[in-house]
Amino acid sequence: MSEPLAEPFDAILELAGEPLREAMVSVEQRLHEIAGIELHALYTIEAGGKRLRPLLVFVAGLGSGAHTALCRAAAAVELIHSATLVHDDVLDDAPLRRGRVTIYAAAGRDAATSTGDLLFSSAFAELARNESIAQLASLSAASSALARGELMQRADAWRSDVTLERYLERCELKTARLFAAACELGALAGDGPPLAPFGRAVGLAFQILDDVLDITGPAERTGKRPGADLLDGTVTLPLILARKRSPELAALDLRDISGPDEAHRICKVIEATGAAEQARQHALELVASSKRSLPDGSPQQRRALELLADGLVERFA
Amino acid sequence: MSEPLAEPFDAILELAGEPLREAMVSVEQRLHEIAGIELHALYTIEAGGKRLRPLLVFVAGLGSGAHTALCRAAAAVELIHSATLVHDDVLDDAPLRRGRVTIYAAAGRDAATSTGDLLFSSAFAELARNESIAQLASLSAASSALARGELMQRADAWRSDVTLERYLERCELKTARLFAAACELGALAGDGPPLAPFGRAVGLAFQILDDVLDITGPAERTGKRPGADLLDGTVTLPLILARKRSPELAALDLRDISGPDEAHRICKVIEATGAAEQARQHALELVASSKRSLPDGSPQQRRALELLADGLVERFA
Repeated sequence: MSEPLAEPFDAILELAGEPLREAMVSVEQRLHEIAGIELHALYTIEAGGKRLRPLLVFVAGLGSGAHTALCRAAAAVELIHSATLVHDDVLDDAPLRRGRVTIYAAAGRDAATSTGDLLFSSAFAELARNESIAQLASLSAASSALARGELMQRADAWRSDVTLERYLERCELKTARLFAAACELGALAGDGPPLAPFGRAVGLAFQILDDVLDITGPAERTGKRPGADLLDGTVTLPLILARKRSPELAALDLRDISGPDEAHRICKVIEATGAAEQARQHALELVASSKRSLPDGSPQQRRALELLADGLVERFA
Repeated sequence: MSEPLAEPFDAILELAGEPLREAMVSVEQRLHEIAGIELHALYTIEAGGKRLRPLLVFVAGLGSGAHTALCRAAAAVELIHSATLVHDDVLDDAPLRRGRVTIYAAAGRDAATSTGDLLFSSAFAELARNESIAQLASLSAASSALARGELMQRADAWRSDVTLERYLERCELKTARLFAAACELGALAGDGPPLAPFGRAVGLAFQILDDVLDITGPAERTGKRPGADLLDGTVTLPLILARKRSPELAALDLRDISGPDEAHRICKVIEATGAAEQARQHALELVASSKRSLPDGSPQQRRALELLADGLVERFA
């Protein structure tokens, strides 16, 4: 079983103590049970991950006694996330993820596509056990948004006219909605205060910071060389902002990038314009504002949510 | 808008009259609305199809006044089916389906994978509007089964030791469960008698007859040359039965088939053993037995279900 939580989130476990630790172990066990019916699905779950979305579910439901319901919701959100990763690896021709060979590389496109479908379906089957229509509506809406975000990313690939608004809409669909759903599910299952706006804001910040990291590196943090997004035609915030500052970048056609070295050089040009830092600041402001506008809840939950938001930022520091 | 129902099912429309006709039009409109949010999704729905699963939903709920609920359930089942077709086309490298260029061929693997995901998610979003946990549990279980069936088919590809039992289990997962769910959803939404066993039996028969058609043709019916299953390594009932009767087939390694002509020749060898006819008889018995064991319902519904079962068989006649 993988070690689910990375170091920046230790403080939350410290604060929330044994119940949260147990919840994270429970969801890990449940994920293994659900995926255990099929070899490739199990392989996906065993590859681990930060389990950030389950953590969001539990923190959004903190203090509630609804352990089983929260655990199902947490497992369901992680299953949707895992399904999209498996399909992303097919789309990206990815040999590795989290240091392990992807299902796509190990067992082929067919197995990976069907495994993603199985994980998707299993998410809804698991969540249905909570017998809450509101929860199912929330997850299915987020899951639809995710697929639309992915389609939007592919439609916008290589384009030089992707606007800031369109980029933010894509991040909203691709990432923020599932973060929002995780918080909403936690609040619904745990009868907590409404936290979807918080989830949305930190999700948006998470995606922006991830996109910044692809420009600034270092490679030890991302597991890949800077500029991977440029090479597969994905236009992100740093490039959009940098294009307004650099004539070279304004004239750049991503299709002309000759390879990783050239992509790395362009990353440095983008960084030199200050655009990557500007994008980072935008994400940090989103996080700060999400902390300021937290709804009333228990002081412990409020603190845990603040730590979670900080942990997200720290991860990219 | 496509003409949804093929001729063998005309008799059901005759029998059930205007309400069923209107229901089939409503589900078609609803499918277009749902898919209309995204270009590729709309393209998939516009490609049409027999809409057999929606018909099952409506007939299972026949006589009920729950039009809206039945229409949502019918749309949800068809969306799951459409999602799997889009993904199947990716897996099969298929240029055409229903005489139209596939999304895979027209827009690429990426768009097709994400479109399938969107259709999957949309199915659950649509069904959630019925606010029935039982319905959502039924659809998610069927959808998981489908993906497992697909994985099983890929795992068993090219193998010479696929047993009758394993073949039937695969058909159960890949096809029968969604037929059963369609009937179950219709019964749940329309407050009708339990019809999942009927759906399961006709679904199994449907898959077997489809597999027989791949051996016996004619190509005008299937839209492809006989032996397509042999060429992609899919072991079906006629081959399993024929292997017991023909030493040549018992020794056959599917990987050694040189191309379409050789596959066509092997189809004729299989047919000459009588195995295709034996498989067809097995399917017909399943249908006959499903008609005999129909639960008590209105005489009109009973007759409609019988016609539906007959229509299925006739389609392959």
